[in-house]
Amino acid sequence: MRAVILAAGEGSRLRAFSKRPKPLIPLLGLPLIERNILALRECGINDFIIITGCYADEIQNYLGSGRQLGVNITYLHNSDWKLGNGVSASAFRKLYRENEKYILMMADHIFELELLKSVIEAAKKMEKKELLLASDPRLEKVYDIDECTKISATGNRAERLGKDLKDFNAVDCGLFVDTGLLQKALAESIEQKAYTLTDAVNLLAEQGKVKLHFVNHNWVDVDDPAGYKYCENLLLRSLIPPKDGFISRVINRKFSLRLTKLLSSTQLTPNQITVLSFLVAIVSAVSFAFSNPILGGILAQFSSILDGVDGEIARLKYLQSKYGEIFDSILDRYADYLIVIGMSYAWYLSSDNNLLVLLVSTATLTGLPMSMLFKEKYKTITGKPYLPEINDGKLRYLPANRDGRLFIIMLGGIFNLLPATLLILAAITHFQTIFRLKVVRQLL
Amino acid sequence: MRAVILAAGEGSRLRAFSKRPKPLIPLLGLPLIERNILALRECGINDFIIITGCYADEIQNYLGSGRQLGVNITYLHNSDWKLGNGVSASAFRKLYRENEKYILMMADHIFELELLKSVIEAAKKMEKKELLLASDPRLEKVYDIDECTKISATGNRAERLGKDLKDFNAVDCGLFVDTGLLQKALAESIEQKAYTLTDAVNLLAEQGKVKLHFVNHNWVDVDDPAGYKYCENLLLRSLIPPKDGFISRVINRKFSLRLTKLLSSTQLTPNQITVLSFLVAIVSAVSFAFSNPILGGILAQFSSILDGVDGEIARLKYLQSKYGEIFDSILDRYADYLIVIGMSYAWYLSSDNNLLVLLVSTATLTGLPMSMLFKEKYKTITGKPYLPEINDGKLRYLPANRDGRLFIIMLGGIFNLLPATLLILAAITHFQTIFRLKVVRQLL
Repeated sequence: MRAVILAAGEGSRLRAFSKRPKPLIPLLGLPLIERNILALRECGINDFIIITGCYADEIQNYLGSGRQLGVNITYLHNSDWKLGNGVSASAFRKLYRENEKYILMMADHIFELELLKSVIEAAKKMEKKELLLASDPRLEKVYDIDECTKISATGNRAERLGKDLKDFNAVDCGLFVDTGLLQKALAESIEQKAYTLTDAVNLLAEQGKVKLHFVNHNWVDVDDPAGYKYCENLLLRSLIPPKDGFISRVINRKFSLRLTKLLSSTQLTPNQITVLSFLVAIVSAVSFAFSNPILGGILAQFSSILDGVDGEIARLKYLQSKYGEIFDSILDRYADYLIVIGMSYAWYLSSDNNLLVLLVSTATLTGLPMSMLFKEKYKTITGKPYLPEINDGKLRYLPANRDGRLFIIMLGGIFNLLPATLLILAAITHFQTIFRLKVVRQLL
Repeated sequence: MRAVILAAGEGSRLRAFSKRPKPLIPLLGLPLIERNILALRECGINDFIIITGCYADEIQNYLGSGRQLGVNITYLHNSDWKLGNGVSASAFRKLYRENEKYILMMADHIFELELLKSVIEAAKKMEKKELLLASDPRLEKVYDIDECTKISATGNRAERLGKDLKDFNAVDCGLFVDTGLLQKALAESIEQKAYTLTDAVNLLAEQGKVKLHFVNHNWVDVDDPAGYKYCENLLLRSLIPPKDGFISRVINRKFSLRLTKLLSSTQLTPNQITVLSFLVAIVSAVSFAFSNPILGGILAQFSSILDGVDGEIARLKYLQSKYGEIFDSILDRYADYLIVIGMSYAWYLSSDNNLLVLLVSTATLTGLPMSMLFKEKYKTITGKPYLPEINDGKLRYLPANRDGRLFIIMLGGIFNLLPATLLILAAITHFQTIFRLKVVRQLL
């Protein structure tokens, strides 16, 4: 499936905010249009047609052939872009292939990835003689509804679209899958001197040919500075993985998302941030070892927060890699080991009862990788992830995962309670392992 | 698909060897017929029809409704079993359903599981109007070829079958998939007073309706004491997993297969053997700690051998479970930890340079789980197993996997070289991890 992106408009309301053409305004490290291309690439789309108008050269100079993004880009210029976006969409007609399904998207509408995926899923099932229109029925959640194109619908058929519709039950997200009908309607509507996309879509709606795909993920038309801010927050919130640990969700993400926002505009790669997090862990270990537990503790927690940032930046800027995941996972284990070794060493130096220190430290050290070991083994054997929220029962609040463990280490450092901290870590990690063996015995 | 098992004969040649009816003679812990039922269950077959004759009551009393084996068994009695096995096979006619495909198997022919799986795969693709016959073209590998039914074939069509055929290019494995043709041929052949299966198959072969499925796994007709021994070896050899570690393949399996043979006739479950292996590791750790490194080393290696037996018994007696795999994997980690702790403790007590001991011991301890961690993570992220034989290059001979590590520990114990052993273990495990990160960076 090919995607047609409309990037012809002037975007005057954002002009005061940034000197760059609207599709090229960077938002969390990626220009709007580049984010849309990468998001669609993530959904398996590799061929793009960009319709330019106002800033044709700037856009083409920036994106080039698309090779750097791993996609193919063809440009079509619409010199009559001022007439309306219908004229721009109609420029695709000369490249349209008989019976082709294609996506039509606005360069400045930003969607959560899941929304795009659901539209592409729906596109696979749609019939030939209809137009699919992504629309949002969650009116209370739509950003700046006054500026939206409203839809009056019966079931999932659009009856009428318009910005000033009084009676409506959804709004147009500006994302279509066309099977050729829209191109015909555009020609007809332009002939009648009606130049907007909505004019053409209304012609099809009258014939009952506009099928609505109701979305339940967020999106925003980045049209003014407020929309820009709203979009930033939307994207940052979408970075939190559904299966986040408790401490991570309640504490770490508050900081990591801010850091991600800050770092997104830099060239730092996720793997570089992984290394940074590891280095912070080393400094934490050394701080513990040299009797500075407060610094050690705070750095351990900071390393834990940074450990969230690498994944956030990767998802935000479409830089995920399988190697990155493995690299992060292995370095995390080493970071954990080093911090516990630093703590044990400090305790060892200050204690008379060396054997007790050794016993507790070893118990802690051996407990550290068990949570991950267990979950990975469960996944490779059963093919399904082990779900702590469901399978662990009340023990899901046990802070035995990495976010919880490093938080405990921070507290232990700040209150200078290294022996107790090591003992608690040993106890919860091994207890969790034995408990989970019991759980899977009943489960499998 | 249903399976029909012929268990009507007398099996006189094995009678002297065991007093039990031939299909009920236990071989490596399972009576022949039960092994066949469980193997087919493993291939997804749950409905069985057993044709009895000579020992009808004994067989029916032993297997019952099949519920204990997780299958359904229906019995058909053929009082004319002495006439020939064609008469027994023909007894199924009254239960045959129009257009049904079914498997026809001898109770006393034992097949490697992969052979059965390939026949069932082939059955899915076969045409309606033919009989599928598993046949072995690897004449030099066939056991006791004199007693086999030979096949003269052109391509994969059988032209003629017979025990005394002089010119033949394959032998009959005694395993069929019938689409109804065979039942008709049996009726015709019995009418002509030709009572063996081969008589009926020959009628079909004359019409070009017998399609051969050429096997490339082993099987044996357990017909006499020599065949029984041959079958034991065949099954034991088939227990070695293709991706075995080097030490495991060269040393451990030699012992573990003997132990498996010994233990197969007991009621010991795989999980009990896992626990036993863990207990041996504990005794090894204690032996090391109490300055008996030779015993410690030997027990570590013995624990490693036992660690192979649980899986062998599970595969041999169809007792595999997902819980068992996870349980084994977690207990292995603890066993490794304990043994290294025991060794470190002994060194610690005898050394003046406590810090060096601690450093090396911790490095060893933290290296132990890395090989597994890496492989499991790789599998969950890429969906494919990490293949050391291919991806590790020359480092595939590095004994960093469990079989290699425990072997090194045995040597270190026997020669009382604990410090060097710990140092080597630390070096190879961490080196392997860093090396593999480099490999996957290029791979992914």
